[in-house]
Formats: sequence, structure tokens, C-alpha cells
Amino acid sequence: MRDAYHEELDTLTDRLVEMTRLVRSAMSRATTALLDSDLHLAESVISQDEEVNRLYAEVETSIYEVMATQQPVAVDLRTVISALRMASDLERMGDLAEHIAKIARLRHPESAIPASLRDIILEMGQIAERLITKTGTCIATRDVELSKELESDDDAMDKLHRRLFRILLSPDWKYGIEAAIDITLAGRYYERYADHAVRVAHDVVYLVTGSRQEA
Amino acid sequence: MRDAYHEELDTLTDRLVEMTRLVRSAMSRATTALLDSDLHLAESVISQDEEVNRLYAEVETSIYEVMATQQPVAVDLRTVISALRMASDLERMGDLAEHIAKIARLRHPESAIPASLRDIILEMGQIAERLITKTGTCIATRDVELSKELESDDDAMDKLHRRLFRILLSPDWKYGIEAAIDITLAGRYYERYADHAVRVAHDVVYLVTGSRQEA
Repeated sequence: MRDAYHEELDTLTDRLVEMTRLVRSAMSRATTALLDSDLHLAESVISQDEEVNRLYAEVETSIYEVMATQQPVAVDLRTVISALRMASDLERMGDLAEHIAKIARLRHPESAIPASLRDIILEMGQIAERLITKTGTCIATRDVELSKELESDDDAMDKLHRRLFRILLSPDWKYGIEAAIDITLAGRYYERYADHAVRVAHDVVYLVTGSRQEA
Repeated sequence: MRDAYHEELDTLTDRLVEMTRLVRSAMSRATTALLDSDLHLAESVISQDEEVNRLYAEVETSIYEVMATQQPVAVDLRTVISALRMASDLERMGDLAEHIAKIARLRHPESAIPASLRDIILEMGQIAERLITKTGTCIATRDVELSKELESDDDAMDKLHRRLFRILLSPDWKYGIEAAIDITLAGRYYERYADHAVRVAHDVVYLVTGSRQEA
């Protein structure tokens, strides 16, 4: 009985890691769709978000099963409850990638991103991918040290986010209101995506150490 | 033992209701601060978000205690797990009110909201308050019917949000990029606040009926 139970907990972890893969791929495609105004890619992100939601529902169901049939305590209890929070954050990250893809779709065949901002958006996308890749490794390995690395990636994201605003607000801005709104929202989505990645990593620290960090 | 346990569950519910009161008050003050450029009020929202976070931590701790010391099943298990999700959504609603207050603070002594948009923002604020008030009643009374009412309030919020964008994008827009960015973000915060209120109400439906609705 006890063995089947730990297998169930492992499956839970596998599903969370799988969720990180899906939302990493979604963000990678969303960024390319946004930069290249690639409608096909944007549509793929939007339609495949369903898969993330399905995995989330599966994680939730299996958590209820574990809770109802076993009596997890100590680290196992923390694992199960943290899994619930992580799955919720990861599901939200899928939504944020989808929102970015929707901006790309809305402006197609135009690009929502003026040429002079492509570099920043590309870098925000790369940091987002780096973050979620590390988050996945954190979940799989429970590496508390790695989770600290995410903080500096998140700082880099915040810096780019602020730079984006400075450019939008500079007197040289010549792309009008619509582009400013698109970029304001896209910037916000990248920044929130990073925040959620950090929260998930903090949950890994919590489940390993039992002490909670600020998200 | 069983009685103390149910008292603990009641305390959990009380704390969630208290959280709805705090984030309602925060949103109410944030909206006034935004519309009247009231720095004092904005600061009060920002400094008091700590209280929401503290309540969230308390809810989390007591959930772990209940899980570790009791073995909640069926509706009790759903109550406890839902409480965790609800507290997380409510905590986030406090953050969103704080973000709105920060826009007010950033633009003080100017107002971030041009006169012609005051009505829409006021209405978004009122819908937000109506939503969270109903959410609080939902949690306290477990009234599944009431939770359905939140959907139409949320629809009204989405409509206002779209109207806001139409105004920003109209050729008559004369308030520049900075105001457009402020309003884009504020609009997003109100809309997200409403989404979270609906999610919490859905969690009430879930804990009562055991079946999950789309958020």
C-alpha cells in the first residue's frame, strides 16, 4: 500500500514537470509568433492551452485521491499541498503564454512589436524560457540551490520590463497608442510569467525545507 | 475532538470572509485614490496589504494543521482544499488593489484618469466591490445560487474593460501614451480582480456540490 502511494506521489511530480514542458513550449512559440507575426504558431499556442488545463485537472483529481485515501504527513503532506499550488501557477503560466499568442493573432499580418523593441521582447522570452526550464528541474530534482538562481533571472526580467516602459514613455515614441497598449500588456504577461515561475520554485523550497519564502 | 475540528473549519471560513472584507475595502479605497488622486488613501491601501498577506499565511498554517491532525474526507476535505485556493485568490485580489493604488501614488498630485474616463473607472470599481461582497456572502452562506450571479457582474466588468480599450484606441484620444498605459494596466487589474472573485465563488460551488466549473 505504502509503495503504491509513493508511486502516486512520483506520478504527481512527473505531471508537474510535464506541465512545465508544455508551458515552456507555449511561451517559446508565443514569443516567436509575436515577433514573426506567425499566425499558425499563435493558433497552436491558443488551441493547445487546453492540454495544460487538462493536466491541471488531473493533478487536482489525483491530489484529492491521495488526500482521501492516504493520510500524508510531514514532507508528503507538503508535497501534495505544494503540488496543488504549483499546478495552479503553471496553469496560469499557460494562460499568460496564450494571452501573448492572442496579441500576435490580433495584429496579424502586422507585427505587434516595432523593430526597435524586438530585442527586448526576444530577451524577455528567453528569460521566461530559462526560468521555466529551471523550474522544471527544481521540481524534478528538488534542488533548493537552483531555486535561488531563479531570483536573479526574475530580476533580469523586471529590469527589461522597466526598460520597456522607459521606451514607451520616451518622447521619441512614434508607434502610437495601439502598439503601446499591446506592448504594455505583453510586458506585463512576461513579467507575471516570471513571477509564477519563481513562486513554483519557492514551493519546491517549501516542500523540501518546510519554511516559506516570500513570492 | 470532532467538535474542536469543526470549530476549526468554521474559523477557517471566518478568516476567508474577513479576507474578502479586507480586499473589498482595499479596492474601494484604491478606486477613490485613483479617481481623486488621494495620496493618503493610496498609501493606506499599499501599507495595509500586509494584513491580507498575514491572514493568508494564517489560513495556510491552519489548513496544514487540520490536514496533519485530522483526516478530513468528502465535503470537509473539499472545504479545506478549496480554502487554500480561495485564500490564494483573495491574497492576489489584495495585490491587484495595491497595484491600482500604486498607479494613483505614481501620478499624484496629477490624476491618472482623464475626466472623460472617470465614469467607467468608477463603474469598474463599483462592480469590483459588488463582486467581492457577493463572494464574501457566498463563502459565509455557501449559497450556490448567489455564486451564479457573479457571472453577470463579471460580464459587465468585461464589457466596461472592452469599452475602455475602444476609447483608448479612438482617434480622439488626446491624453498621450502615459495615460494610455496607466489606464491599460488599471483596466487589466480591475478585470483580473473580477476574475478572481468569480473563481472563489466557483470554489464555493465546488465545495458544496463536488463538481468543478470553469473559471
